[in-house]
Amino acid sequence: MSAEIDPFHAIAISRLAHSLKAAGRSIIHMEFGQPSTGAPARAIARAHQVLDTDGMGYWESPALKERIARHYLDRYGVTIDPERVILTCGASPAFVLALNCLFAPGARVALARPGYVAYRNSLKALHLEPVELPCGEAERFQITATALERIDPAPDGLILASPANPTGTIIPPAELAAIADLCRRRGIRLVSDEIYHGISYGEPAQSMLQHAPDAFIVNSFSKYFSMAGWRLGWLVVPESHVAAARARMGNLFLTPPSLSQHAGLVAFDCEEELGGHIAVYRRNRALLLAALPGMGLRRIAPPDGAFYIYADIGHLTTDSLSFCARLLEDTGVATAPGVDFDPVEGHHHMRISFAVSEELVEEAVSRLGPWL
Amino acid sequence: MSAEIDPFHAIAISRLAHSLKAAGRSIIHMEFGQPSTGAPARAIARAHQVLDTDGMGYWESPALKERIARHYLDRYGVTIDPERVILTCGASPAFVLALNCLFAPGARVALARPGYVAYRNSLKALHLEPVELPCGEAERFQITATALERIDPAPDGLILASPANPTGTIIPPAELAAIADLCRRRGIRLVSDEIYHGISYGEPAQSMLQHAPDAFIVNSFSKYFSMAGWRLGWLVVPESHVAAARARMGNLFLTPPSLSQHAGLVAFDCEEELGGHIAVYRRNRALLLAALPGMGLRRIAPPDGAFYIYADIGHLTTDSLSFCARLLEDTGVATAPGVDFDPVEGHHHMRISFAVSEELVEEAVSRLGPWL
Repeated sequence: MSAEIDPFHAIAISRLAHSLKAAGRSIIHMEFGQPSTGAPARAIARAHQVLDTDGMGYWESPALKERIARHYLDRYGVTIDPERVILTCGASPAFVLALNCLFAPGARVALARPGYVAYRNSLKALHLEPVELPCGEAERFQITATALERIDPAPDGLILASPANPTGTIIPPAELAAIADLCRRRGIRLVSDEIYHGISYGEPAQSMLQHAPDAFIVNSFSKYFSMAGWRLGWLVVPESHVAAARARMGNLFLTPPSLSQHAGLVAFDCEEELGGHIAVYRRNRALLLAALPGMGLRRIAPPDGAFYIYADIGHLTTDSLSFCARLLEDTGVATAPGVDFDPVEGHHHMRISFAVSEELVEEAVSRLGPWL
Repeated sequence: MSAEIDPFHAIAISRLAHSLKAAGRSIIHMEFGQPSTGAPARAIARAHQVLDTDGMGYWESPALKERIARHYLDRYGVTIDPERVILTCGASPAFVLALNCLFAPGARVALARPGYVAYRNSLKALHLEPVELPCGEAERFQITATALERIDPAPDGLILASPANPTGTIIPPAELAAIADLCRRRGIRLVSDEIYHGISYGEPAQSMLQHAPDAFIVNSFSKYFSMAGWRLGWLVVPESHVAAARARMGNLFLTPPSLSQHAGLVAFDCEEELGGHIAVYRRNRALLLAALPGMGLRRIAPPDGAFYIYADIGHLTTDSLSFCARLLEDTGVATAPGVDFDPVEGHHHMRISFAVSEELVEEAVSRLGPWL
C-alpha cells in the first residue's frame, strides 16, 4: 500500500470561499500563502518578448543559475558554483528532490510543529518518518539546538524554515550556528526552506549556507518575487550531491517552465517594485498586531518575516477547521485552520495571511472585530 | 542511502552538440524527444492576453480538466469525470504521482526494455524494483500479454507506453485488451504512458482506458501539442484514487503553471496547425525509412507513431554512447545512444528523433550517408 496522507484543509476553506463568492458574497482571501500581486512589470514584459521569439523547448537557463549563485554572494556573502543550483517547478518539487537525494525509506527527519503541512505530508508520502518537535510560544514556534539535542537517537535529517510558515518567526543567527554545529556533530542532514527570504520586518534572515555549507537550500519565486503560479523554484545542493540531484531532476521532473525562467531572471532586477510589496506587508502586519489584541487574540508571536499571523483561538474553539468555516460563512474572511500546521495543538489556532492590499486588511479587521 | 540512478546520456550528447555549435559548427539536433516547433499560434496569443490580465497565483483550471475529460469522450469514446484528471507540471511528475499513489517501496513494476530511461530511473529513485521485460524486433519492442504472463510471481505494476519511446511502435487493440485482462486477473496495476497519442502514421493508438477503466493514464502537452517547455501534463486516476492523488499533488507539487493551463486549453482548438506538424513528421519518417537501409541501417521497426527511429548499429559498434559522440563530432548530427533506453542491448542501437523540419532531415541524411 502507498502511504496515507492528510489533505490540506485550507483548500476546503478556499473552495467554500469560492462558492460563497459565486453566490454573490464579498470574500477576503487570507487563507493561502500567496501574494495577491502579480509578477513584476518588467518580468511580464520579458515574458511577452520571449513568447514571440522562443520555441520554448525543454530548457534550463544557465544565466538564471548564475544569477541565483550571485544572489548568494550579494545577499549572504556565500560563494557557490552555479552548477550547485538546480532549477525546479517551484519549492515543492525542490523539497521532494532534496528528500529523495538524501534519505531512503524509513529515515527519520525532524521538523517543527507547527510547520508547513507539506513537510509532514511529503515525508509520509515518501515513506520517511516525521519526528515532530513541539515548538511553543516560548521558543517562538521554532526548533532550537537544545531541543534537537534531546532527540535520541539522532534523526537522519532536519527540516528548518526561517521565516517559518505559519508563524513568520525567524531563527536568530546564533541559534542557526548552534543548530548547524549540532547537525555536524550528530551527522544530521539539513534541509533549509528559505522560501520567505526577502520578506522580513527587522533583521533579514540568514541563509543556512552561512553556517552549514553542505545544507540543502530550498527557495522559489512564489513569495518575495510574487510569481506563485509561474512555478519556478530552486534547490542548492552541496558539490557532493550535484550529480545525484541532476540525475533525479532529469528523470523525476525534467525541466522547469522555460518562460518562467526568462521572466525570473529579470525579476532579480525589480527590487524597487518588489520592495513596494514588502512595504504593504509591513503596514498590514502593524495594522493586525495593533487590532487583534483588542479583539481578544492576544497570544501571537509577532512575525519577523513572511506574511502570516498565527493566532491562538483556544478561548473560542477546540476545532479550528469548523471555526474557520464558521468565520468565513459569517464574515466572508477566509483563513487557514491551525490543524493544517499542527495536528496536535493546531485545533486552537488559525493562520491569517496578510499578503493582500491594505484596504482588504482594514476591511477584514472591521469584519472580524464585531464577530470575535 | 538514497538510490543510485543513472544519468540520461543523451544530455551529454546534447551538451557536446551545444559546445560544437558555440564553436561555429552546424549542428542538427535529433537527440531529444521534442518538437522543434513552438506552441500553436492561438495558444501563444492567449498567453499574451493572460499575461496582461491575470495575477497568476496558484491555480488549477477547472475548464482544462473538463476539456481533457471531453477529449477522452471525443477521441476514445470513454466517459470520465473531470475530477479524475490531475493537472501536472508535465508527464514526468504525473508519472511520479502515479507511482507514489500506487506502490510502496519494494514493489515490483514491469516495463519493456528498451523503454524511456526515466521509467527505470524513477522507479529506482522511488525505491521500487524495475522488472524489465526484454522486447526484441519480433515483438516490435513491445510487451505482450504472453510475456507478462510468464513473470512469476506477478509484478505489482506494469508500465506501458504506446506509441513507445524509443521505437514509436504501437500495441494493437487486441493485445491491449489481452494485457488489460491479464492485469485484472493477476492483480497488476496499470500505468499507461500515452504521451505520444495524436502522433501516428496508421491506425491511431487506443487509450488503455478503453480496456482497463482503473488504469492510471499519463499524458502531456509536450509532444502532439508542441509545448514541451510549458511544462504541462496530466494524470487520469480511477475514482478510487482521486483523493490520494489530489493530496499528493497538493503536497508534493502544488499546481502546474497557470499560464500554461490557459494556453493549453486553447491548444485543444488548434487541430489544423498541429496536424501540419504531423504531416511533416510523416514525410520525415518516410524519408528516413527510404534512406537508412541504403546506409546499412536495415534493422529498424518502422515506427507506428511518435517521432523516433530506433536503429540497430551493431555492425558498426558495441558502444552506442561513444558511437553517437563520434557521429556528432564528425557530422554535426546529434542522436541519442541506445544505452539510455536499454542498458543491456542498447549498446548497439541509436535513436534518431525526426521532430525537426524536412530540410534538416534531408541535410542529416546527406551527412549520415557518406559517414556511415
